[in-house]
Amino acid sequence: MSLARLSFNQATAQHWPLPEVVAGCVASGVPGIGLWREPVAGYGLARAAKLVRDAGLTVTSLCRGGFFSAEDWQADNLRAIEEAATLGAPELVLVSGGLPAGSRDVDGARRRVADAIGELAPHAAAAGVRLAIEPLHPMFAADRCVIATLGQALDIAERFDPAVVGVVVDAYHVWWDDTVYAQIDRAGARIAAFQVCDWVTPLPEGVLLGRALPGDGCIELRRLREAVDAAGYRGPIEVEVFSAGVWARPGAEVLDAAIAGYLRHVV
Amino acid sequence: MSLARLSFNQATAQHWPLPEVVAGCVASGVPGIGLWREPVAGYGLARAAKLVRDAGLTVTSLCRGGFFSAEDWQADNLRAIEEAATLGAPELVLVSGGLPAGSRDVDGARRRVADAIGELAPHAAAAGVRLAIEPLHPMFAADRCVIATLGQALDIAERFDPAVVGVVVDAYHVWWDDTVYAQIDRAGARIAAFQVCDWVTPLPEGVLLGRALPGDGCIELRRLREAVDAAGYRGPIEVEVFSAGVWARPGAEVLDAAIAGYLRHVV
Repeated sequence: MSLARLSFNQATAQHWPLPEVVAGCVASGVPGIGLWREPVAGYGLARAAKLVRDAGLTVTSLCRGGFFSAEDWQADNLRAIEEAATLGAPELVLVSGGLPAGSRDVDGARRRVADAIGELAPHAAAAGVRLAIEPLHPMFAADRCVIATLGQALDIAERFDPAVVGVVVDAYHVWWDDTVYAQIDRAGARIAAFQVCDWVTPLPEGVLLGRALPGDGCIELRRLREAVDAAGYRGPIEVEVFSAGVWARPGAEVLDAAIAGYLRHVV
Repeated sequence: MSLARLSFNQATAQHWPLPEVVAGCVASGVPGIGLWREPVAGYGLARAAKLVRDAGLTVTSLCRGGFFSAEDWQADNLRAIEEAATLGAPELVLVSGGLPAGSRDVDGARRRVADAIGELAPHAAAAGVRLAIEPLHPMFAADRCVIATLGQALDIAERFDPAVVGVVVDAYHVWWDDTVYAQIDRAGARIAAFQVCDWVTPLPEGVLLGRALPGDGCIELRRLREAVDAAGYRGPIEVEVFSAGVWARPGAEVLDAAIAGYLRHVV
């Protein structure tokens, strides 16, 4: 089987310096890379863009914009759009942010997400970057992302041109949802990115760093991949794993394990 | 405001002996108590039934049956139905169980839940106990409860007589769901129990003991209470909090705090 659609998200090997991630992908025949703003800024935006381009890798996405509950959300997201354009990332992943401190108004927070995306959409269109709304698992609804299901993400995305606003299907965030296959079908050309990792328990404190490499948990990854394909998605498949355990391993070993899990459990 | 609908679930003061919980409720004017099988068995089933009855308290629910992925689910649930009948608990709360070890077949697990409830329903009807399907927050979908939304619980419950199979609306498990108000309206007479506690972050390791007393978190408890009332629910409102922090406090103090939170944030 082929690695043609595989993208390695750099967050999967959190402590691996960008040049080594890039060299590792090239050496392993992985054609795509998913980037994060913070390590890119640390390396230098223009320098990172050149590094990846010179290596012949495709930037599949940039994480992340969003966090619309923050005071400076507008300036920060405009910067994120520009960074995505500079990197040649076709998709800017948006994690919407949680409830403002002390607030219980989840409906209000969701309305603000839709309004913010409406403000950003013309800028994204002008930059040639698609805004990709990522629903996060409901365990993050209070503090990271009030958009908790693919259905909700689509309710917002459908107000806009599908070339400008799409959705992210991340297996970790949506696998538990009995409506997810219907929503993937509904999403069709709105699917801007497909990300895979795996679900294991017990969840760690803070629940952020408890993911597993594809195949090491209970998610029907192949079934989800077949569903996004059946919905018409032809884009990259990003392996993105947040895990204290995985991050403690050498980057090259993590990349090998990601490739093996991808071949065995996803394609 | 009145305490007429308040029920104190004994799990909220996990380490408080049952006679003290009962005496505390009586002294505070709390008319209802929610019981758990393990502490009831520890105290003695018949003895617990007499203790509560003699105190004039109403048993509002028994937790819990379910866990249909376990080998002995049938015998265990038949015992639970009998225990509920002995205690005079009108509702047996069912937590459905997660995926079998090593399984990724979430659809199959969900089918088995529906089949198991079909097997139990005649026994529950004969015992005068209603089976109350509790959807748990999706963060428990893999290891505790494959029924992750109120909509899913209703999809199963609606196959049965509403006097025999209902659903639990627990604010902690459903607050994040943008369809929850539509599903509460759909549930109507299926609402067998309404439970309240609050959502706070960061979640602790294992995510089980991270709940808060009503009012200490971000859930719109009053809005949810108004919604179940509007759907026709007239039953008890149970305060049920799993929290290492709350459990470390003296039982009487926890009961006082539960009452205060109930009066201030729920009714």
